[in-house]
Amino acid sequence: MSEFDFIDWLRARQCTSAFVQLPAGDDLAILAPEAGDLLVVGVDQVLEGVHFDLKQHTLADVGRKVVNRNLSDCAAMACRPAALVVSVALPKSLSIDDARALYLGMERTAGEFDCAIVGGDTGSWTGPLAASVTVIGRSDGVTPVRRSGARPGDYLHVTGPLGGSILGSHMTFTPRVTLARHLASRSLIHAMIDLSDGLSGDAAHLARESSVALVFNAALIPIHDDAHVLSARDAVAALDHALHDGEDYELLIAGPEPHLNGCTPVGRVEAGTGVWIEQNGIRTPLPRHAWTHDLSDE
Amino acid sequence: MSEFDFIDWLRARQCTSAFVQLPAGDDLAILAPEAGDLLVVGVDQVLEGVHFDLKQHTLADVGRKVVNRNLSDCAAMACRPAALVVSVALPKSLSIDDARALYLGMERTAGEFDCAIVGGDTGSWTGPLAASVTVIGRSDGVTPVRRSGARPGDYLHVTGPLGGSILGSHMTFTPRVTLARHLASRSLIHAMIDLSDGLSGDAAHLARESSVALVFNAALIPIHDDAHVLSARDAVAALDHALHDGEDYELLIAGPEPHLNGCTPVGRVEAGTGVWIEQNGIRTPLPRHAWTHDLSDE
Repeated sequence: MSEFDFIDWLRARQCTSAFVQLPAGDDLAILAPEAGDLLVVGVDQVLEGVHFDLKQHTLADVGRKVVNRNLSDCAAMACRPAALVVSVALPKSLSIDDARALYLGMERTAGEFDCAIVGGDTGSWTGPLAASVTVIGRSDGVTPVRRSGARPGDYLHVTGPLGGSILGSHMTFTPRVTLARHLASRSLIHAMIDLSDGLSGDAAHLARESSVALVFNAALIPIHDDAHVLSARDAVAALDHALHDGEDYELLIAGPEPHLNGCTPVGRVEAGTGVWIEQNGIRTPLPRHAWTHDLSDE
Repeated sequence: MSEFDFIDWLRARQCTSAFVQLPAGDDLAILAPEAGDLLVVGVDQVLEGVHFDLKQHTLADVGRKVVNRNLSDCAAMACRPAALVVSVALPKSLSIDDARALYLGMERTAGEFDCAIVGGDTGSWTGPLAASVTVIGRSDGVTPVRRSGARPGDYLHVTGPLGGSILGSHMTFTPRVTLARHLASRSLIHAMIDLSDGLSGDAAHLARESSVALVFNAALIPIHDDAHVLSARDAVAALDHALHDGEDYELLIAGPEPHLNGCTPVGRVEAGTGVWIEQNGIRTPLPRHAWTHDLSDE
């Protein structure tokens, strides 16, 4: 199968909709936004040896992860994923069947949210596998939620247990699109971010953007089973895994209600700055020692 | 400079506009399309060793090329480039200053068309350099031009001389956005495609999508000086370089007028199928032997 056959195979899978006026196949796809609809856009990539390992993960797993990273960003804005474009740098050691498996993993994952792949660029090279996905989401009746809207007095919530994602959930998580849109449509969210850098790191982003202090209650942080498993292996406290591990892809929410369906309350928003944690009645700063990939690392 | 400093540096360069309601910095950027505006979207990447060579080309050159490949797609749809998102897989051997040079090359190139970079994802890895750009364009008063509108009786035009791009113009070309929008706004274009795979290959796409035959006049094909230089080296006819070399990034246009300002007439559209060339009164099929990167190549 040549590149052109592969492109024909991809094109045969395309369909139009009210939003996707012309899918992939021309120089560009054509999208027809509804009047008043806002669009959100961003990109996330996965790189072999950094975000996945082909010795452990299938190509379908890789496709799932790179799409879900982007859908999680849509969730964090309370937007509806609508269209994806995909670029893949394919090692020469992989076959067209591998490319197809990767694509099918992407397509199936996007399809769970009625999101279409509307364009792509696949190139073969001697480097490792890299896949980059751009997501375009629609507000579709729900005002996009930003990181900057948290107010003193708000309650903090997370949408699931945290930590230990390296044991597997970083590949298999479910983006919280449905829950986020449900809550945001009821005005229950003032600010939101998805937890890709780890709770301590992402909380710092939200605190900074909202010009507030976030205060977590250590006893309330929901700890993922895998954080306990990891803790037994590495003697780092499970709570520390929950606070600092990256790639949970749950949402951190600040909002006016003390309890939200489907969420765990974890703390409060106060006037001030920074991120804090209270444990046994003592409040200390929660330092960000999340996954800061230093680009100058050798 | 850490990744977070780099992100801060990127964010400080962002600005808002009527279209870009919220630039990079939140989970996603927010775009506000005007009522009735169509959007076009697609992605093109450049890979080290395939599309550029860091021994010959600067990082700014690479940034320019990957952006211009995308702007050329906008030109081919007669759309106005409006926003880009960028992902970069950065070799550990490169520095943050290199990443910055790449970004500045992208930004400067996009800025020539008032197009903003609104999002990005930079990751460091042990692989070679890969950069992927997604473009979002706006119709902004000009109906997007597709490949499928050519009609028997139309005239064929190209926007510049062809061939020999490997000698340098594949890195330095100017996307024909302004000319394409000027002509399309005057209803002078029925179908259009940009010449990335080579004239013979891209003409086949346009012929197939429009269900017509394209007939080129060999004597009219404008031959780039570099095609002559290459011909003197490799003994392949300069005309063959013009017909088959890839990465010219000129436009092939089918339209109702025999002459178009800024273009060279190169043939006609007829009823039928396929791509043909007439030379010395003899018509023969013009086979596609353009750059078909076979993904299964070893």
